[in-house]
Amino acid sequence: MKTYIGIDLGGTNVRAARITEEGEILAQVSSPSHGQEGPETVMKIVKDLVYSLPNWQECAGIGMGVPGPVNTEKGCMEISSNLTGFKGYPIADDLQKEFGLPTFLDNDANVAGLAEALVGAGKGLKTVFYTTISTGIGGVLVVNGQTVSGKHGFGGEIANIIIDRNRKKINYLNAGAVEVECSGTAITRKGREALADLGVEHAGQVFALAREGNQKAKEIVTTLHRDLGQLFATIACVCDPDIFILGGGMMKSADDVLPGMIEEYKKLSHEALWDTPFVLAELKEPGIVGAAMLPKSQGI
Amino acid sequence: MKTYIGIDLGGTNVRAARITEEGEILAQVSSPSHGQEGPETVMKIVKDLVYSLPNWQECAGIGMGVPGPVNTEKGCMEISSNLTGFKGYPIADDLQKEFGLPTFLDNDANVAGLAEALVGAGKGLKTVFYTTISTGIGGVLVVNGQTVSGKHGFGGEIANIIIDRNRKKINYLNAGAVEVECSGTAITRKGREALADLGVEHAGQVFALAREGNQKAKEIVTTLHRDLGQLFATIACVCDPDIFILGGGMMKSADDVLPGMIEEYKKLSHEALWDTPFVLAELKEPGIVGAAMLPKSQGI
Repeated sequence: MKTYIGIDLGGTNVRAARITEEGEILAQVSSPSHGQEGPETVMKIVKDLVYSLPNWQECAGIGMGVPGPVNTEKGCMEISSNLTGFKGYPIADDLQKEFGLPTFLDNDANVAGLAEALVGAGKGLKTVFYTTISTGIGGVLVVNGQTVSGKHGFGGEIANIIIDRNRKKINYLNAGAVEVECSGTAITRKGREALADLGVEHAGQVFALAREGNQKAKEIVTTLHRDLGQLFATIACVCDPDIFILGGGMMKSADDVLPGMIEEYKKLSHEALWDTPFVLAELKEPGIVGAAMLPKSQGI
Repeated sequence: MKTYIGIDLGGTNVRAARITEEGEILAQVSSPSHGQEGPETVMKIVKDLVYSLPNWQECAGIGMGVPGPVNTEKGCMEISSNLTGFKGYPIADDLQKEFGLPTFLDNDANVAGLAEALVGAGKGLKTVFYTTISTGIGGVLVVNGQTVSGKHGFGGEIANIIIDRNRKKINYLNAGAVEVECSGTAITRKGREALADLGVEHAGQVFALAREGNQKAKEIVTTLHRDLGQLFATIACVCDPDIFILGGGMMKSADDVLPGMIEEYKKLSHEALWDTPFVLAELKEPGIVGAAMLPKSQGI
């Protein structure tokens, strides 16, 4: 069975693993990444990690996930807020020369979605849309086993999609952008505003209060259902996926989010689209497994 | 050079042509389709047309575009409002048995977009989004030379995307759906409502009045710019295409629509996305050329 090297590079830590084409992790190593010290330091750490993996020479290729938009053709980052000096740095070329293996780079959310599409909840399906709802909201479209990263690596970067243009502008994103209205951070913010006396510290408390019948919390959750339902109805109009896969911290509250959200999705969608399944992500390590799937998705 | 048979089947007429892999039409025939008389009658007409094409035996495959959503795997229509009895009818199988050539079916808007992606304005690009704005609004995403039709053939069926959920509900589509607010029909409706005394009969008159300084017409056009800008900003978040290609009757007024629309698109998009080109469709016969491109897009 073919194996690949997967690398999950973050601003704080980096992991490397040897992984089978079925997504099984055979060996894994990790290290602090020293992401603020520049590409030379960071890439030395990455290379040493790969060299420390048993039988790395037998792998067919290398894939790496990084935080932020990626130019997948050039194998470099477009924006690198957590990795100083990496904007435009030829990461894939550097590793390819070092190890003599075909190397591919993509955004970490894209890579997690690729893992779910190829060896997780979307296995065997042609068109998969993966969404992560956590501190922020991201996602990726996977078609025929390849991520659709697009011209600037922004494919699936759905955070800025407007679900209601008449809301207040909160940050650099659009007024009414889905991340500003539906992320865990957003639900916490709304909970604090509406329920100032209850000491809301995370979104889970808002869901709990709604279950207990708190009227203001229920309004927040009802609006979330409508907002997310509209997001997925919109995405379905663009690519009509075989499946929507949902990951990220908010899915700890899936029972509070999904049924109401799917009901709203149906209200806003042609009935032909009602049977599209919404399922939870099923992999434990989508970041590093998905990185290893990048060469596989390119036919290597 | 390879050649293919392209068939453009509508409720009123049907055309068939022999077309090169570069999109050149070598021979074309047409007939009334008798779309209300059922599959047996219609398919007989289609087959006779193909038989009448010189050297049809030398073609590598057959592609057909039809009006409405298609199950591309099964080669049949999901909904067939203009072709009585065609819902679920195995069109592709029927033609494949008759002519012994691999046969593919897709929606006519998808097929037009495929033509533009493969041999028109998007030639050589990886991720292409084609939009037609006319009586209605439709489109298609083309990735790696293949249309992303999705689970139910609704991929690119962007008519129902909500650009402002606070608008009035007008028809069966969502309140604030882009087709209800931005199609040629919608601009004509808004013109009639706002300019009742001026006898507006088509969208072009609203654009002309706006150019002449009519305040109410200018407001309609300004809103159109914002609404369409938001539509394309939304699509860019999902798939970040290398190019947006625009076709359909409204592009006769491209000078009135595009500059303002692109300005709004930029306001609602991350600056990394500002350089995505918006260009006009360039093929004269995208419907039939695109049908012929269906087998090519499948590697035939």
